[in-house]
Amino acid sequence: MNLLLIERHEISGDGVVRLDGRRARHLRKVLRVEPGRELRLGVIDGGRGTGRVHSVTPNEVELVATVGDEPAPEPWIDLIVALPRPAVLHRVLQTAAAMGVGRLDLTAAWRVEKSFFGSPSLGEDKIRHHLILGAEQGMVTRLPEVKIHRLLVPFVRELEERRSQTACDLRPHGLLAHPGAEPFETAFPETGKIEIAIGPEGGWIDREVDTFNKAGFAPFSLGPWILRSEAAVTSALAQAELMRRLR
Amino acid sequence: MNLLLIERHEISGDGVVRLDGRRARHLRKVLRVEPGRELRLGVIDGGRGTGRVHSVTPNEVELVATVGDEPAPEPWIDLIVALPRPAVLHRVLQTAAAMGVGRLDLTAAWRVEKSFFGSPSLGEDKIRHHLILGAEQGMVTRLPEVKIHRLLVPFVRELEERRSQTACDLRPHGLLAHPGAEPFETAFPETGKIEIAIGPEGGWIDREVDTFNKAGFAPFSLGPWILRSEAAVTSALAQAELMRRLR
Repeated sequence: MNLLLIERHEISGDGVVRLDGRRARHLRKVLRVEPGRELRLGVIDGGRGTGRVHSVTPNEVELVATVGDEPAPEPWIDLIVALPRPAVLHRVLQTAAAMGVGRLDLTAAWRVEKSFFGSPSLGEDKIRHHLILGAEQGMVTRLPEVKIHRLLVPFVRELEERRSQTACDLRPHGLLAHPGAEPFETAFPETGKIEIAIGPEGGWIDREVDTFNKAGFAPFSLGPWILRSEAAVTSALAQAELMRRLR
Repeated sequence: MNLLLIERHEISGDGVVRLDGRRARHLRKVLRVEPGRELRLGVIDGGRGTGRVHSVTPNEVELVATVGDEPAPEPWIDLIVALPRPAVLHRVLQTAAAMGVGRLDLTAAWRVEKSFFGSPSLGEDKIRHHLILGAEQGMVTRLPEVKIHRLLVPFVRELEERRSQTACDLRPHGLLAHPGAEPFETAFPETGKIEIAIGPEGGWIDREVDTFNKAGFAPFSLGPWILRSEAAVTSALAQAELMRRLR
């Protein structure tokens, strides 16, 4: 936990925040806070600031929060990920949050096991839990907006609609990870936001590549490797950040 | 498993390979192979080729292997990673193998818990198991050479010695991941091999940064994030591959 995240409603009128549960345990047992200690603190989807520890009891940590109102930087990458198995999903959620992704669409694909959609990991609370863990790690206050899509074709149609309702210069540039395609630096746009689609283990099938192509997604390759979902997500976000700095 | 990896001694004189255990189970249950099926196959630290399934029984799969002798590409990145906790170590080993790392030095650091060095995960067989899983995923035949260092300073001295015994133009360029340092693209060398050092959760302490600096390591930053070890490893390898293509 590099940043203590709190909900806005957890701050009372006089700036007092009372924490119990996981965060209180972490503050007591891992960070070993004592009264007077100052911590970096952020409000989910809000500003950042500090929290000064006021009291520590076995069940509760009380802080006084001072939070600025500069907004979190506007995200410039959206992710589309073919739904991975639950353990991998947890890490994908954490990485997406830590690395500042805007939207995260989890989608069906031919090579996604249908049973993954029945997993308790897709519960709203579970998803939010892992997003918060990632945001705490990455020192980010804005959580990605996560949506689940049980059918790929209607989802891609929804993407196209979303795009057609967005002014041209604000439309994200679609990029589809596909081994053997042109290198990332060739496919990467000169300006603007991007939207990266990462396939399942085993990759997108040809028909899916076609579907994304027709919706304006350019296939690209991250390198000579065949990567697992989570490594592909991390690699794509890392290379995108580097390309953004270089463009 | 995108590439079936075998040891050279597993191939008998007439090219027959008999598999049992994990690989046989995977071939039967996941890939559902039947006699006649051709698989991509590689010899650990050797060439690649194909294996034609000859017979399948509940305990054994028999293949006939045809293996070329082109060597695996020479690795150009070595990694130094502050020893992470066991579950993370497994993924770091897999990623390093899948992404074609040459040497992987796992080292102590101020913020590495000493107990990690007592973990059964550091057994030679355990390490090799995860390297093979990664290589199977990444379709790589060469496994990274892994070493464990219980003390940082003597290890860095060893690195310096290794370097002084290497011709100047073959010496790897040392790079130290450190949040807030100059961006990767500025620190990245114009030619030659590289050696990237990734710190523990919480980062390298100042004294460690000094130690690496004195040994010629240039600090660099992957981006605006604070990443967990495994995400930092993957990001560094992904950005390095992109920089290599761009230089």
